[in-house]
Amino acid sequence: MTTNLFSPTDVQRFFDEHWTVRKYKAVSMPSEHLETILAAAQRAPTDATAQMYSFIRLTDPALRARIAEAATNAHIATASESFLICADVHRLKRILEVHGVEGGHFPHIAIHFGIGDAVMAAQNMLIASEMLGYRGCWIGGVLNALDLIAELTQLPEGVFPFAALTIGVPDEPPQHRPRLPREQVIHENHYRPYSEDELKASSKAMGPITARGDWPQTLSRYFGKGGGMEQREPVLESHLRRKVFLE
Amino acid sequence: MTTNLFSPTDVQRFFDEHWTVRKYKAVSMPSEHLETILAAAQRAPTDATAQMYSFIRLTDPALRARIAEAATNAHIATASESFLICADVHRLKRILEVHGVEGGHFPHIAIHFGIGDAVMAAQNMLIASEMLGYRGCWIGGVLNALDLIAELTQLPEGVFPFAALTIGVPDEPPQHRPRLPREQVIHENHYRPYSEDELKASSKAMGPITARGDWPQTLSRYFGKGGGMEQREPVLESHLRRKVFLE
Repeated sequence: MTTNLFSPTDVQRFFDEHWTVRKYKAVSMPSEHLETILAAAQRAPTDATAQMYSFIRLTDPALRARIAEAATNAHIATASESFLICADVHRLKRILEVHGVEGGHFPHIAIHFGIGDAVMAAQNMLIASEMLGYRGCWIGGVLNALDLIAELTQLPEGVFPFAALTIGVPDEPPQHRPRLPREQVIHENHYRPYSEDELKASSKAMGPITARGDWPQTLSRYFGKGGGMEQREPVLESHLRRKVFLE
Repeated sequence: MTTNLFSPTDVQRFFDEHWTVRKYKAVSMPSEHLETILAAAQRAPTDATAQMYSFIRLTDPALRARIAEAATNAHIATASESFLICADVHRLKRILEVHGVEGGHFPHIAIHFGIGDAVMAAQNMLIASEMLGYRGCWIGGVLNALDLIAELTQLPEGVFPFAALTIGVPDEPPQHRPRLPREQVIHENHYRPYSEDELKASSKAMGPITARGDWPQTLSRYFGKGGGMEQREPVLESHLRRKVFLE
């Protein structure tokens, strides 16, 4: 079937050794490794062959420092490689244009498949990096300063950042972080309603994923009324109105 | 750093052997393999620790047949495994609720990070499957019948399908499909405007990705005025208004 067969044990061990790193050694990535991870990104699946994503590879130290500050994640300045991961329907509309075809208007579809394509490509890149021994970190904090970051990287209409992604050699110990029980995430044939007791039990088991050991408290800071996501909401909405003409 | 080191050549060969399959052998997946790919999904990165996704594993043959028809992809009925890959902010709001916390209102953020988390987890699952020798196919066609598919799988408010994903043993020959030139997808420090000539040249090079060898024509059928994406747009928009209270 393929020349690349791994045993279930090998595969499970590989994914078990995924962990997120925010403190990196001050080393650069050899060009052969960079070539490999970018090639992996480009081999990702893509909706309707359209490759609706662009990465902005950040190499200018001053630009990195400004984006690190705007996104409140210092490792954007210090990682071996830092990328802005963007959804992109600009390029495909330009391609239609140079072939004399008028592009359609589909803002929700652009967000849907643009984010999908961007994440498939970047997740491929992260996994390829982990295969080479690196670790990385996805950064949602770019949503705190979307307009500034899009302006600094000169993103045209039709292109918006999903997140940033840093990759490097860890300078911090491994951490295995808990996940929700399988049966709360993988349903069979239909979505299964949750009981109060099982949600309370799994919240408790998720404790170690947070610094204070109190997962519901962390979730509430982000997703509760008045929390971080409600603060990001108007920033994202107004950015999308201007960038993909969301009505 | 890790016990799982691969050479750049190994990594590149692995990702080069990704290809999309729509015709599968009629075999089931051994439970050890299923366990491995689901574990890989759950190890994926997740925004703010929230795991904003759910998979609906489709095992009921009648349900599979109905969804295959609705999503116009027969292999949903015939693959070894078929999943509906969903963004999910319902579960985290239930968790807040059982801890006495009122959830916030952040529909654009829910779409953004919900799709992100769902795609990271499902792309992990696809890559784990490919490591075991399987191949798969992402299916955007669920967007043609979102309401019906959500009703059949009993998705609550806060949960919506991003796509389906089939996995199985290929019953068709491998195909290596072209991609855009690296420099059109990976930018450095700022988004580089494209010249007409380079877009025309790359459109031509992309020809073999389509059955007729005419990539711009395929793109135009999906993304041009009056094309498939404009037809899906109101379906997706009205679904999101009801499911994540998009205004």
